[in-house]
Amino acid sequence: MADNPSKSEKSNKLKAKLPRGLADRGPAEIAATRRMLETIRGVYERYGFEPVETPMFEYTDALGKFLPDQDRPNEGVFSFQDDDEQWLSLRYDLTAPLARYVAENFDTLPKPYRSYRAGFVFRNEKPGPGRFRQFMQFDADTVGSASPAADAEMCMMAADAMEALGIPRGSYVVKVNNRKLLDGVLEEIGLGGDEHAGKRLTVLRAIDKLDRLKPEGVRALLGVGRKDESGDFTKGAGLEVQAIEKVMQFVCPTESTLNLKGDALLTLPTSFNPGDRFREGANEINEIRKLVENAGYAGDQIRIDQTVVRGLEYYTGPVYEVELTLSDDTGRPVRFGSVGGGGRYDGLVARFRGEPVPATGFSIGVSRLLAALQHLGKIETKPEPGPVVVTVFDRDRIADYQSMVKRLRDAGIRAELYLGSGKLGPQFKYADKRNSPCVIIQGGDEKARGEVQIKDLILGSEIAGLSKDRDDYLQKQAEAQFAVAEDGLVDAVRKVLARRAGSL
Amino acid sequence: MADNPSKSEKSNKLKAKLPRGLADRGPAEIAATRRMLETIRGVYERYGFEPVETPMFEYTDALGKFLPDQDRPNEGVFSFQDDDEQWLSLRYDLTAPLARYVAENFDTLPKPYRSYRAGFVFRNEKPGPGRFRQFMQFDADTVGSASPAADAEMCMMAADAMEALGIPRGSYVVKVNNRKLLDGVLEEIGLGGDEHAGKRLTVLRAIDKLDRLKPEGVRALLGVGRKDESGDFTKGAGLEVQAIEKVMQFVCPTESTLNLKGDALLTLPTSFNPGDRFREGANEINEIRKLVENAGYAGDQIRIDQTVVRGLEYYTGPVYEVELTLSDDTGRPVRFGSVGGGGRYDGLVARFRGEPVPATGFSIGVSRLLAALQHLGKIETKPEPGPVVVTVFDRDRIADYQSMVKRLRDAGIRAELYLGSGKLGPQFKYADKRNSPCVIIQGGDEKARGEVQIKDLILGSEIAGLSKDRDDYLQKQAEAQFAVAEDGLVDAVRKVLARRAGSL
Repeated sequence: MADNPSKSEKSNKLKAKLPRGLADRGPAEIAATRRMLETIRGVYERYGFEPVETPMFEYTDALGKFLPDQDRPNEGVFSFQDDDEQWLSLRYDLTAPLARYVAENFDTLPKPYRSYRAGFVFRNEKPGPGRFRQFMQFDADTVGSASPAADAEMCMMAADAMEALGIPRGSYVVKVNNRKLLDGVLEEIGLGGDEHAGKRLTVLRAIDKLDRLKPEGVRALLGVGRKDESGDFTKGAGLEVQAIEKVMQFVCPTESTLNLKGDALLTLPTSFNPGDRFREGANEINEIRKLVENAGYAGDQIRIDQTVVRGLEYYTGPVYEVELTLSDDTGRPVRFGSVGGGGRYDGLVARFRGEPVPATGFSIGVSRLLAALQHLGKIETKPEPGPVVVTVFDRDRIADYQSMVKRLRDAGIRAELYLGSGKLGPQFKYADKRNSPCVIIQGGDEKARGEVQIKDLILGSEIAGLSKDRDDYLQKQAEAQFAVAEDGLVDAVRKVLARRAGSL
Repeated sequence: MADNPSKSEKSNKLKAKLPRGLADRGPAEIAATRRMLETIRGVYERYGFEPVETPMFEYTDALGKFLPDQDRPNEGVFSFQDDDEQWLSLRYDLTAPLARYVAENFDTLPKPYRSYRAGFVFRNEKPGPGRFRQFMQFDADTVGSASPAADAEMCMMAADAMEALGIPRGSYVVKVNNRKLLDGVLEEIGLGGDEHAGKRLTVLRAIDKLDRLKPEGVRALLGVGRKDESGDFTKGAGLEVQAIEKVMQFVCPTESTLNLKGDALLTLPTSFNPGDRFREGANEINEIRKLVENAGYAGDQIRIDQTVVRGLEYYTGPVYEVELTLSDDTGRPVRFGSVGGGGRYDGLVARFRGEPVPATGFSIGVSRLLAALQHLGKIETKPEPGPVVVTVFDRDRIADYQSMVKRLRDAGIRAELYLGSGKLGPQFKYADKRNSPCVIIQGGDEKARGEVQIKDLILGSEIAGLSKDRDDYLQKQAEAQFAVAEDGLVDAVRKVLARRAGSL
């Protein structure tokens, strides 16, 4: 590796800047994410899943290269070399590391093995709006079961998670498909066999963009290719016109609108002759449908949808995704898109074991789901109330102020000593910025009387707009700043906090 | 960068192996860590600190190079190059990224700015027992206050956190020192000024090893150098004998035992003439002492200790660390060592701002603290109870079994359907391995009678050792496996769970 440029850096002042595609997370987002993850965790635990976590990086070989975006350096992965020259990569999802984990601990794990984990993943992609190079996923996986019941369970768990988060029925749907159906169609048009794996993937990825590019865009990508708005040209799969039509007829039977009803399953292209692989996929789909219906899930919760493909290469059977439909400002429903998805990946653990190990898993895009919950007003993303600020009126008496803080904290009240160098004005401004409920002041006069002043900042800002002549102004002003005896400090602050809790 | 070797990999079977120095985390460790972090978080919130999190990597320049272990490639940091050739590094601590965050958001943040975060950090070090290349830290920092009250607050918060975690008084101590004191000693022996910064660091790091290497080892590192047990030679600071003695007299005044009493502050080397820097450090130390005493902390909670140095280069004033003293099997106290530490780093944010920005922070080594809590029996690290397992007696009736699972889950009970392909025997073994409280069985006979069988696995294993003739065996056997009507399933399982909760 080349020498690090910082060594020759001569400028005196470094630039404080995050690399592109990365983001810091503030208190409101952290708290909202934690609440959301706890809710999902509760659902997954109830399903018998248990947590397991793997590190942020792995041997590059162990992760494999299954990302859709192959036009990027290192195929979308951040890699670096270890001392012993072996390549390491930051994980790009949580599935590939889990496959390594299960293979490494195969003999000691219960099988089938149900597990879940939330964690950051990394993509070496061109960053864009809402497209980050580090983001969080929340995954659940069942390894060691080939049964469609395992896939059905994933779909039900996804639906349960959405409802536990407060997303109303009708605003989410779990859409299910099976890669084998499309594989059958591709076989029929002569794209079967290992030698066409690359081309099949190009076709899958074209279909995966149906939502965004509409049928005409997908048709272009199945053929010679497509020029996007920026003028960039994406090479297509190079299928013949007839083959393209067969694929399109299967993927969106009517083509006038996307098929969102789900009752069009097995709408086959004219002249289509389903082979074994197709029938196998159809049977699995029907089995899943039977199980979820029997468990009481309705068609608006879990639904068959032929357009679902999922971009990742490693899926081998059932695939599913959770789509949200939210309302815009005028109350009109808008498709928010996918907040999670997954599928069966029977080949991933097998790479290590040399024997087939069936597996299926589901991954939630945490930031995207959080954005949806904010839109729905289902999660609090306002900053939490700040601490009580004990101001420093007289710098020599800082130890006294410190012990007031201590008394408040010992009573379980969030409290802090002002640690800056400003006078009282800046201290009040600081407390405002911290979203403090109240500040405590003790100057020489108060000290002499054995008192402290308590200033309610919320009430103070409320009465700022009131007419100063009115009685309620005077009364509220008296409530907004008042003196109490030193030993009444904790009780008085509790009253202010209670007032605030009541007004929320 | 060289091409990735996986492309030319020809072997059919990949090795499932974590890179050296990394570890997976199982359910018990994850749950225990979560509980521990929640407790610490509660204390930090009460002190008015708010969460903020930064990404796993940053521009290499922005992080700087402050790690002690400079004999490693890339100076202990994992680095890789971005598309635009700029170097990125995985964070090696949480302080350097926070400095970047504060500098980047300086104008919008309240100042002083108190924040906390838990997160993984990465060190490109030689892994060893208990020494990992990814590990978690829990940091709290106050940026924008030069007051020793900010340092005192850190020490009190550290003590409060230890007590909140259940570590008894006397088993932990927060030890405080000030880099300026030692800087004063170093000035006195002619190591002042920028030109001796490197040598001063060598001296600091030698002293930081006092615990492990004892005075004779440190003395060697201050002089020509030291050969360790493995025969590796570490070059020393090259001080003259007289200078070494002055340093040693200050660091451990008696030298016969380490000074753990803390009342030896300002025990000066003979012929030592304290300069301004030393006096400044002594004043700060005394200020901190006054504040913590006034807030009611005793000497066995927070104590001055001249041997505390902390290995990181960026500390500029007060430094502190939390040491635990636990008991071995025979009840004898053993030093467990440091579970956290920190100090004042007034220069770190200034690197970006071009103006001084005082700051102080404290970092907990999460895994190490967890190990200590386990040793003390203060945190549960046994696996949690597993789910109720509904067995599959008749594969054609999987949808029926699925709906039993659904009924249990809807009642808030952790439950799952057996998803493997084994017969009843392997299903029971699976349930045992999952730590399940009970399994549900419904064969054809039970179905005909409208019943289900419930088998209590805990009770079942308890009676396995009892004599089969005795009455209590027969009674318990009846309790351990029994039939209930289908619609009594949820209530019966609740009873089994209650029995278990009672016996714990």
